[in-house]
Parts: sequence; C-alpha cells; structure tokens
Amino acid sequence: MKFGELKRPEIERLDKTHKVVVLPLGSLEQHGRHLPLLTDSLIGGEIAQRVETALANDVLLLPMQWLGSSDHHLKFPGTISIPSNLYIDMIAHICECILAAGFKRILLFLSHGGNDVPCQEVIFRLGIKHRDKSPFWIASAGYWSLADEAMKIPEMATPRSTHACEYETSIMLALRGELVDLTQAQGKTLCMESKFYFPDFSRPSKVNISLPFESMTSTGAIGRPDLATPEKGHKLLDAIGAKVVEFVREFAYWERPTMG
Amino acid sequence: MKFGELKRPEIERLDKTHKVVVLPLGSLEQHGRHLPLLTDSLIGGEIAQRVETALANDVLLLPMQWLGSSDHHLKFPGTISIPSNLYIDMIAHICECILAAGFKRILLFLSHGGNDVPCQEVIFRLGIKHRDKSPFWIASAGYWSLADEAMKIPEMATPRSTHACEYETSIMLALRGELVDLTQAQGKTLCMESKFYFPDFSRPSKVNISLPFESMTSTGAIGRPDLATPEKGHKLLDAIGAKVVEFVREFAYWERPTMG
Amino acid sequence: MKFGELKRPEIERLDKTHKVVVLPLGSLEQHGRHLPLLTDSLIGGEIAQRVETALANDVLLLPMQWLGSSDHHLKFPGTISIPSNLYIDMIAHICECILAAGFKRILLFLSHGGNDVPCQEVIFRLGIKHRDKSPFWIASAGYWSLADEAMKIPEMATPRSTHACEYETSIMLALRGELVDLTQAQGKTLCMESKFYFPDFSRPSKVNISLPFESMTSTGAIGRPDLATPEKGHKLLDAIGAKVVEFVREFAYWERPTMG
Amino acid sequence: MKFGELKRPEIERLDKTHKVVVLPLGSLEQHGRHLPLLTDSLIGGEIAQRVETALANDVLLLPMQWLGSSDHHLKFPGTISIPSNLYIDMIAHICECILAAGFKRILLFLSHGGNDVPCQEVIFRLGIKHRDKSPFWIASAGYWSLADEAMKIPEMATPRSTHACEYETSIMLALRGELVDLTQAQGKTLCMESKFYFPDFSRPSKVNISLPFESMTSTGAIGRPDLATPEKGHKLLDAIGAKVVEFVREFAYWERPTMG
Amino acid sequence: MKFGELKRPEIERLDKTHKVVVLPLGSLEQHGRHLPLLTDSLIGGEIAQRVETALANDVLLLPMQWLGSSDHHLKFPGTISIPSNLYIDMIAHICECILAAGFKRILLFLSHGGNDVPCQEVIFRLGIKHRDKSPFWIASAGYWSLADEAMKIPEMATPRSTHACEYETSIMLALRGELVDLTQAQGKTLCMESKFYFPDFSRPSKVNISLPFESMTSTGAIGRPDLATPEKGHKLLDAIGAKVVEFVREFAYWERPTMG
Amino acid sequence: MKFGELKRPEIERLDKTHKVVVLPLGSLEQHGRHLPLLTDSLIGGEIAQRVETALANDVLLLPMQWLGSSDHHLKFPGTISIPSNLYIDMIAHICECILAAGFKRILLFLSHGGNDVPCQEVIFRLGIKHRDKSPFWIASAGYWSLADEAMKIPEMATPRSTHACEYETSIMLALRGELVDLTQAQGKTLCMESKFYFPDFSRPSKVNISLPFESMTSTGAIGRPDLATPEKGHKLLDAIGAKVVEFVREFAYWERPTMG
Repeated sequence: MKFGELKRPEIERLDKTHKVVVLPLGSLEQHGRHLPLLTDSLIGGEIAQRVETALANDVLLLPMQWLGSSDHHLKFPGTISIPSNLYIDMIAHICECILAAGFKRILLFLSHGGNDVPCQEVIFRLGIKHRDKSPFWIASAGYWSLADEAMKIPEMATPRSTHACEYETSIMLALRGELVDLTQAQGKTLCMESKFYFPDFSRPSKVNISLPFESMTSTGAIGRPDLATPEKGHKLLDAIGAKVVEFVREFAYWERPTMG
Repeated sequence: MKFGELKRPEIERLDKTHKVVVLPLGSLEQHGRHLPLLTDSLIGGEIAQRVETALANDVLLLPMQWLGSSDHHLKFPGTISIPSNLYIDMIAHICECILAAGFKRILLFLSHGGNDVPCQEVIFRLGIKHRDKSPFWIASAGYWSLADEAMKIPEMATPRSTHACEYETSIMLALRGELVDLTQAQGKTLCMESKFYFPDFSRPSKVNISLPFESMTSTGAIGRPDLATPEKGHKLLDAIGAKVVEFVREFAYWERPTMG
Repeated sequence: MKFGELKRPEIERLDKTHKVVVLPLGSLEQHGRHLPLLTDSLIGGEIAQRVETALANDVLLLPMQWLGSSDHHLKFPGTISIPSNLYIDMIAHICECILAAGFKRILLFLSHGGNDVPCQEVIFRLGIKHRDKSPFWIASAGYWSLADEAMKIPEMATPRSTHACEYETSIMLALRGELVDLTQAQGKTLCMESKFYFPDFSRPSKVNISLPFESMTSTGAIGRPDLATPEKGHKLLDAIGAKVVEFVREFAYWERPTMG
Repeated sequence: MKFGELKRPEIERLDKTHKVVVLPLGSLEQHGRHLPLLTDSLIGGEIAQRVETALANDVLLLPMQWLGSSDHHLKFPGTISIPSNLYIDMIAHICECILAAGFKRILLFLSHGGNDVPCQEVIFRLGIKHRDKSPFWIASAGYWSLADEAMKIPEMATPRSTHACEYETSIMLALRGELVDLTQAQGKTLCMESKFYFPDFSRPSKVNISLPFESMTSTGAIGRPDLATPEKGHKLLDAIGAKVVEFVREFAYWERPTMG
Repeated sequence: MKFGELKRPEIERLDKTHKVVVLPLGSLEQHGRHLPLLTDSLIGGEIAQRVETALANDVLLLPMQWLGSSDHHLKFPGTISIPSNLYIDMIAHICECILAAGFKRILLFLSHGGNDVPCQEVIFRLGIKHRDKSPFWIASAGYWSLADEAMKIPEMATPRSTHACEYETSIMLALRGELVDLTQAQGKTLCMESKFYFPDFSRPSKVNISLPFESMTSTGAIGRPDLATPEKGHKLLDAIGAKVVEFVREFAYWERPTMG
Repeated sequence: MKFGELKRPEIERLDKTHKVVVLPLGSLEQHGRHLPLLTDSLIGGEIAQRVETALANDVLLLPMQWLGSSDHHLKFPGTISIPSNLYIDMIAHICECILAAGFKRILLFLSHGGNDVPCQEVIFRLGIKHRDKSPFWIASAGYWSLADEAMKIPEMATPRSTHACEYETSIMLALRGELVDLTQAQGKTLCMESKFYFPDFSRPSKVNISLPFESMTSTGAIGRPDLATPEKGHKLLDAIGAKVVEFVREFAYWERPTMG
C-alpha cells in the first residue's frame, strides 16, 4: 500500500500488528560529473517500490524523503541538504507521528550513506523516549547493508558501493540511462597505508573518520564509475530488491528477543 | 528543468540571472473521510509540473516536499508532520543551499495552508541574515493566493478553498479520481456571529485565531466537498495553472523596486 | 483594570469567564528622521489605554511590551530588537502564564507590523500545545487590521498605514507633538510593475516578500509623512479607538463557533 | 535623556564616549496579599527616573522592562514570567543592539532579585563573545547592592530587603499608597539552624540554595511588611536614589583597570 | 563512599535520607606560567577526598568533573572548556540522574570560580522544575566561600584567593610541588579607583562585571603567586578541609526551614 | 605526557605536528549486580594509561571523561548520564578547544559503546565546520574495534565484548578485583531468529535497532560474566593495550590519503 494514497479512515481501520511503514530516505546532492543530483533518491525509490509491490499487504510505503543530510557535499553546488542535527529532529518527528497513529514497525530505508548515523541517533533517542510504551520496532538500514553479500556479483570490478561509483552508475544506467553521461564518469580512489583505516572501502575501517567530500575527490565521484554498465545495474537491482523484500517480510513478524 | 535531474556541472554552468527555483511545499495529512492523505502534495505537484512544462527554460523544479507543518491535524491519525519551528529551519536550510549555489530567485510554492506562516518567517529571517549579499528574491505564495480571483469560476458553490472542500475534492476528482470516495464526502461549516472573525472563510478575518482542527470539524473536512465534480476540478486546475505560470514568468524578471 | 496594579488575591478572586487580558505589543525602533524610537509603543499604548478606559470591567491591561521583533531595522542605529524566534518564545511564555492563572481570552494587540507573523506563530503553537484544555481564545491583531475601513477617513492622502508615514506621523503629532520634527519628515515610496506584488501598499500583495528596511527607504520612513497633521491624528485615534473597543467588547463574549 | 524619545539621527550624532545606557529590569509577579504585581517595576522605574533626572546629560534611560525571570513565583497566580534561559537571551540581544549602535557603557539596573543571576550570565557571555572589540562595559546591579549600606537607616526593623517586605512595602506606600492594602500585609520569616545558610537574610549565605517561593512563604510575602510606613519609604528612596546616581556618575568615566 | 565504586544493587539498597552526593566541579584551564592546567581539579579533588575520608558513611563522592566553564580563558591555549549554557545543561542532567536514583541531598562542590554562576542557574532551574516532588536539597559552594574566614590565616600576604595566586600556588606546592615552576610565578593585580567595583578582590564588588581573562593579566596569573610556600598550602588545605567537612556534616541533616 | 599536568607555556611551545591528544571517554552506569558503576571508565583509563606510558612523547593524555551517553541505562538507578544530543555538543566543544590550541590529531578513545554514535556525529560535524582549515584528524574508536581480532583469545567462551559480560568482568577482576562480586555475576543472552539482526552479538547486525537496556536484561548484565577470570582479564588487557598503542603510533604520522 502507498501510505499517502490511503484516506484517514483506512488508516484507522488497518490491523497494524504486522504492518511495516517504510520511509525511504534519499538525498539530492552532487553525484560527480556524470550522475544526476537525485541519484540516491531515484535508486532508493525504485527499490522501495519493488518492496511495496512484492509485499503490498504488509507494507505502507511513504513517499521518498529526498532531503537528506549531505552537508559534506555542500562545496559542490547543486547539493540541497540540512544539517545532521536538524535531520535527526525531522526523522524523529516523522516516526513519532507514525507511532501515534498506532503502527508498531517502522523501517527507515536508506539509499544515502550520510543519513545513516543520524538515523541511528533517531532510533536511540526514540527508544529511550518511548521506553514505557508497548513494544515497537524502529529499524534503519541502507540497502548496501541488507544486501551486502548479495551485491557481490562476479561482474563487479570494485569491492563495495560508495558514491557515484561503479555500483550507483550501473543502477542509474539501468533505471534512467538518459540522465547519465558516461563520457564524464571519472572517479577517484583514496589510498593510504594503514592497518586500521581503509578509505578505499576495501574493508570496514576500525576507526571512525570523516573527511569533507571535496578532500576525497576532485570530480565528486569515487571508485570506477567508468566501468558501469546497465547489465550490472539490472543484476544489482534484482539482487538488492530480493534481499530487502526478504528483510521486510521477516521484520513484519519480529517479536522482542527472548532472554536466555 | 527538473532540478534533480541535472548533473552538478550543469548546475554550475547555468546562467542563473533569471532562473526561478521552484520548491513545491505540500503535506501528508488527513483530508476528511473521502480524500487521500497526500491530497495537498498531489495538487501542488500537478500545478508545479504545469509551470515547469510551460516555462522549462526559466524554471528549475525541485521535487515536492511532502512533509509539511500539519500539527493541528495530528489528532486525526495518518497525519505526518513536523512542528512549525522545525519546518521553518528545514525550509530555511533548503533556501540557503539554493542561494549558495548562486541562484537569485526562489519560489516557495504552497499547496498547504499550514506552511504559510512558517514560510513567511523563513523569508523574514533569510532577508535579514543575508541582507548584505547581492540582491536576491525569496517569495512564498499559496496557489489560492496567486490565483484567487481566477478561482472564482461560476460553477463553484462555496466562496473559497479551505480543507478537503469543494475545491480540493474537485481537483482530486480531476487528477486521481480513483483515490476519492465521494460517498464519504461530508464537510462542516463553522458559523459565528462576528464583525471581525469569519471562520466560514466568507472573507478574510481581521484578527488571527488558530483552532486545532478537531475543534473545527468532526469529519476532518470543511465546506461542501459533496458538491465536487471532476469538471470543476479541470477548470480550476486550468485557471490556477495559468495564473501561477503568469506569476513565475513575471518573477523571473523582477528587479528591486525603485524608491520614489 | 490595569493587570499590574492588582494584588495577587484580586487576580485569584476575579470571575474570569469574560475577562480579556490585553497585551499591547510595540517596538523601539528607528522611525525615520522625524519620529522618536518609541513611536509604535506610544501609539499602541494610547489606544490600549482608551480600550481599558472604555471597558474597565472587562479588560485587564498589561503594560506595553516595548521590545519587539524589529531586526529588519537593525541597520539603522537606535533600534532595540530581539530575533523573531526569540520573540515567539517570549510571547508564548507570557500567554502561558496568563492561561495558567485561569484566564480564557487573550488579545495580543499589535502596534508594530513586525510582531504580526511571530504572533501568528505563537497562536498556532499554543493552540496545538493546549488543545486538550478547556476552550480558550488567543487572538492577535494590529490596530490597522481591526480598524482598516474606519481608518479610511477622507483627509488621508495615502491609502494605508506603513512605517513613519502620514498615519503614524499624524497620530504622533496628536499625541506627543514635541517629539516630532516635521521639518525632517521625508518618506520614500517603493514602485514596481507587478500584478502580484505591491510594495507601495496600494493593495495586499498576493505573494510574501521581505526586504530589509535599508533597501526600502534611505530615510527610514515610508510614504508621505510630510503631509501629516495633528488633526488627522486625532481623527485617526478616535476612529481606531472606537473600533478596537468594539472588537474587545465582542471578543469578551465569543464562544466556539458552531459546526454547520 | 529618554532613549525612546530620541529620533534616530539624534542617536547617530551623540558623542557616546561617556554615555550610560540604563536598562531598568523589573518584574510583574505576585507580591503577597498587600502589594500590586508591578511592585518591582514601579520601584525600579522611580529610581531610574531619579537617575535620569539627576544625570540627564550622561544617561540614556530605556523604558522599564517589566517582564522578568520570576518562574519561582508561578505557583501564585498573576505572575507573568519567562524562564531564566530565555531571559538571558532576551537581555543579551538588547545589549547587542545597544553595542551595535556604538554605545560603550550599559547598566542593567535591577529592581527584582530573580533577574540577578541571569544578568550575570549575560555579562559573562557577552564579555567573551565580543572580547576582540574595543573595550566596553556592561554592569548589572540591584539597587539593594549599590545602596546596601545607605539602606541601613535606623528606622528599619529588619536587616535587609527581600520580597514584599518592610522595605518594598514602605517604598510602595511612599510611591503609590493607593495600591497597597496594609491590612493584608503579613510576611513570613524562614528560620533554620545553620552556620552556612541564612534563609532569614540576616547575612549572606555561604552556599547557594534555591527554594520555590511557595515553600518559603504561604502569604507570598517575606519579613515584616506590617511594619512599613510611607516615611521609611521616602527615606529609602532618597538614600537609594542618591547612591545609584553616585554609581552612574562614576561609571560614565570608568576606564579599564590598570595591571599592577 | 565512592559513588562509582558501588554496584547498582548497593545504590538501590542505601538508606538515602541523610546521604550527601558530592560532585566536585573543577576545570582544565591555563593557570599562568607556573601552574599546571589541572590545578583547580587537583585542589578540589584533594579537598573532596578529605571530605569522603572524614564522612565515609554520609558521603557518596562522584569523580571529579574536570571539564568546566572556562571560556573566558580560551585566549590562552591549553584551556579545555564548554560554554556556560552547555555547562548548565550538563550539570542539570547529572543532578536529575542523582535525584531519579532517590537521593535527596546534592552538593555541587566548586574549586573553579567560573562554575559558580552556572551552578546557581542549575539550582534555580531544578528547584522550579521539580517543585512538586518531595523536598530535596541541591547546594553549590566554592571552597573559598565555605571556608572564607578559615582561610584568613596570618601567613597570607594577599586578602583572597583568585586565580593562579598566592593561595592556589601554595596549595599546589603542598600537593604536587613537582608540577609547579615557582621561577615563573608572576601575577598581575588590577587597580582601579571606584567605590563600587574592586577588581583587586580586596572586598566584594557591588556591581557585576566580567572581563575576559586576557584583559586582566598578561601572564595568566593574578595576585602574588611568587609569595607561595608549601607550608601555607598545607595550612590552607587543613583549614579548608575541616570547614567543608563541617558543612557536609551539617548538610546531611538539613530540614526545610520553618516559617516564622 | 599528561595534558593536564602541563603548564600553559609548555602547551604553547610543543611541536604539535605529530602529537596525538587522547581523550578517554567512559561512563558511570549500572553494570549488572556484580560490577561497579565506573567499570567502563576504569577499563578505559587503564588502557589509555598504557598508551601514554608506551608513547609518552607522542601522546597528550586528557583525564577520563567519565560522564557518558547512557540514557538507555537510566531505568537502573546509579546511572549518571547526559542525553546524546548534549553529549555530542560537549565532545564537540572539547575538540574545538584542542584544535584552537593548534593540535592536529585527536583520538576520542571509547570504552563505552553508547558514546560511539554520538562521537561519529561529532566527527562529521566538525569535519564540515572546519573544512577550510588546514588538515587535521579527529578519530573515534572503541578499544573493542581497534583490537577486535586481538581480543579473540582462545580462553574466551563468548564471541564478543558487550556489557558487564565475560570480557568486562575479566578485565575488572584483573584491575580492581575487590570491586567485583562474582557471586552475583549473572548475565542474559538475547535470542532471536533472524538473518539480519543478531542481538546475541554473534556477528554484526545488518540493521540498526535500539532497545532500552531494561528490555534486554533483567540483571543489567549481558552474556556470561560468571565465566570471567582475572587471568583472562590480564591477557585481554595486554592484547588490547598493544593494539591501541599500535594504532596511536600509526595515527601520529597519518597524512591525508592520496587520490588515485
């Protein structure tokens, strides 16, 4: 179901026990020289739509929130962003409206990495604020996390999805090829000798570091977008979509863990 | 142009002197028993799209921001809203990103009345904060204000557009009839003896008053939605669309008024 | 009654059903080269006093709050102002103290235009925050709004009251002529070709715009203060006073509108 | 001079080197059963006016800010107050407007004890924020501090001014006797065995403690207001006025201390 | 008892009626050329430890909070500080956790003057916020206030403890002599002709003034640290420790004052 | 070096190019029935001290900040915590003081998991705020992350360190055995069927979830603290200490990654 297409009495009448409200959280930010500003929102929107289609009965899909926490991209014009503290407040209030309507399961579905830490903060704060209410679930997850292993298809030349990279560019070629200028697809890869910090995304770092994007790439893109193809994009979308569907199906029936 | 479909270098290269960035500001809130929650956003999105189509060269259309200031509707489940102070901050930051990219003309285009006062606050604050920058324009306007006289078509039985009323219902019948349940269309009209306050919207009040929506209507709708027809809706959309186009065309070439 | 001259037990004993607490909200800001900084507060104070005199039994008059939201005037020295967000908080807290004391009717009586939008925000927020309390009324209104038609006396050469204009200057000549330097009374009139925006105040604009005051007038005054006379001022004061009295008398007996 | 009676060019033209801007800070709060709510503001206003009269050339007197930090009195209806954090922000912004106009000496003149700690915070914060500007002075002081020894006139039966006490009641009898109901003048005196804390105000405590007012006195008054007379009030006003004048005369010529 | 060495069930089981939770509040800030940054925290920690040793049964000693409100020292590198408004919030939340655990007596024990006004704000705000709870005590006091007369030992050449002065230097020589470089001990004394303000600390000023530290002393120290000796330090510590113990012993049994 | 034992001129004179300022961030919160409240701070303090000892020349060790973000533990009395938004502000201000003093490398060294997400927020915000300054590094890391593989010693029966668990209890037995009551060491293990969420910490979850602690364990402890021994604790401390030393030694010489 599309949340916004329901009428108020329909919301009231729903048996909400196993309904999952999905809030897709994207961005409108620079994506190198070759991808459109809405890239994250278009990708997230497509995956979310696949979930809604597959699980129409369990899912209430909210519209894409395209306004993200992208202040680290603000040196590149075209980025529209709000600061992370404001983003936290915005998402928290949305969740509170959903809880107030009686829903018990909310998925903050991320297609933009910058929204990740703020959403963790939201979940932490609301868990505390509403600790005395009847049990509810708020989960946040990027598609790259839910589908991490599924995304390791043999065609990919680079290890992980980053920003305006081989992964995102392939998906955009599959989705909206007319908006991609592959001739301008040029990414940068960060290199550094370290046993603890891996800015090339080859594996998870052991320390938290944050660099403004302009110090990470002069083109605004990371990795190897020049290697993108629509075929890779279609395969990725299928793999990701299936995995997110699998998660939501499971999430709809979660119960509080038992204490052993 | 669609803002989000551009790539960053395209934003950089634009001659921004007469470009108008249009940010459509809707809501996701209860609209009585007969209209979907996204009503305001669907209406505003349609009008904004007509403007972009008519003035593709002058306009950069941002995606609909469906999250509005609707706390006065929160007693009706299904409403997703942020408090007005947070809404002010959100819109202000969006505007600042647009100004930082070099644009000089922003239209906050409202299809939800609750966003009106917060947007006036935004414009006031940014005018002061950036008073020493080169001149720029931020304007906010509801379609009902830009097109007020044009909306007075003879078919309408009620004097003014309010909420889930004859006007909104007619437009929704024209746009997305399958989402409207006309059998449930029942509105309330507020009556009060006063020379200064006119809660029936028959004319502008001389004092500012604010009532939570649940004290204004038990159905969540106001006025006479039962009188709505798709024909009225199509005529309204045409009238409104033409008027908003006229305004944006003018706005693209505004210069600071001269002092007489 | 003067609120501040009562003792606490007198406040406690009052039957508050039809009492109106009037809070006059002015400013201390530049008023051109010819009017004193306290102009708005002196005018508002005089009108409020007339109301208290006429309706001594129904009205509890608070002292003038001379500190207003005038940041748009800050480029002109002498202006003392707080930012609009702080002004909103200040007025909201005052209202909450009044409600907590048991009063049910508050009039935020404006004699400075910059306080208008912030007061609308206050009313909106408190309406929501206290929506579950027994019904109460908070209204805000500028004297120019309550008395708009009454102010259209034939002597006036200009259509509407603005800032340090023919209207304000005439009233000050009537009230405190010794503080007015008519030889320095020079205003500016903004001119602009538009069907939607009328910076000369000839009629209400259809879009919201905000310009810092220094870009609107080099003298700090608007319109034709040079045409002011004390006779006009006395007539205006009488017309305004009568109208505001009429409103307060009505307001003291308002009941929630009925739903038709 | 009265700040608010000046016109903007007069503010601009002033030689500000030795001008002292005096901001009188009172309250509107319960004062027992026998004194009016505006007591602090009326007393502070009278003293401030004496200072302006005596030093018309050196002083720019702002209007009384009657809205104070009195939340500890809120259990007694009639009190109008803002929270201390908001009070700090309000006073800080006023001071910044005064500094921005070019003044170098500000006196926050207190006639309500609850404003004391917030004003100390203001002075601390502005000293840091503007540390790199050319030297300026912001001072805060209650009249009871500037004139402490001068207030020890032999007629007084109690050691120090507190709240709605022998001192305040005497001054009010001198100033506005018609607003005082001496038949209801009944105060409470707090007693406690301690070597460090003296709630009877017999001498300064060595620890900071704060009790809500309702736990300190059931009548809302402290001490012995029943012993008040107008004669004591006149003597106190003369003593206080002279002392505050003496301070302001000195303050107008302060220079930064020298480092020995 | 050391608060942090207890286990949770031990906290739960405690009879809290007469227990005093002591929170020592120091700083990490520049202390001239001759004292270490942690001076205030080391001194306060030593005194607090003496109190805990003497009154092990009555006292629950929290660890030193070394992060203070020292923004006035920030021009001297090495100072680690948070702004006073944030400090207020931090201390308030700590106190609320202590109250929530059931304790009734909290001592904010200061060894840094900059924490004084913020702690007064904390106590004021919490007194109001929790006014309807069963009675509790929050007190704040600097050791210089509790022990003021006891510190007037004949050996001291200067009248009062200030910053990096004869007093603090002597105590540090007694406590951690190896961290003191007496060859660099050079203080400044502020001189000013005034009957109301005494920047040399010779007696309490009658007005509140705040100067950034860099305008008070070029060395970062005040007074006569060059006259410090370890003997003076030991005597001061003994005198102070005894006095603070005396206060805490009394505080553990305070009851609300009686109304006379 | 110990930061707080230096004098201000020593801070000024330091060559800061390769100095690492280490800020240990612990907590004071309930740790089951068998561990003291300060457990996290004691563990983190020991490891930090080992780092300072090993790398005395490169490291400036700040004192343990024992006040953490532990609101999820607040239902268990004894926990002293500040909300995460305030924690973010506190840590951000500390970092800004360090940067203002000229340092270029800051390690937020965590021994409490609740501080992790807030510190990520801090690093993100400061990276943006100071993006135009000369390059600097702020890193945050829990010891469990830096030393994750090193902690997998064969003696451990459980897979990962959680809260008041086999790991923490073993380390406390090694450090401060007298504060541990092993007879009360009873933990809970959360069990749940899921492919995405692993509340037993057997491996990293693919979604972010946050449960108040009281819903995770009735004893306040997790896992198998009953299996703790001091021998395991000593081995863990050695393994962790070595790994953190290795990281800090590397971090002192990091340069911005190169763009490939």
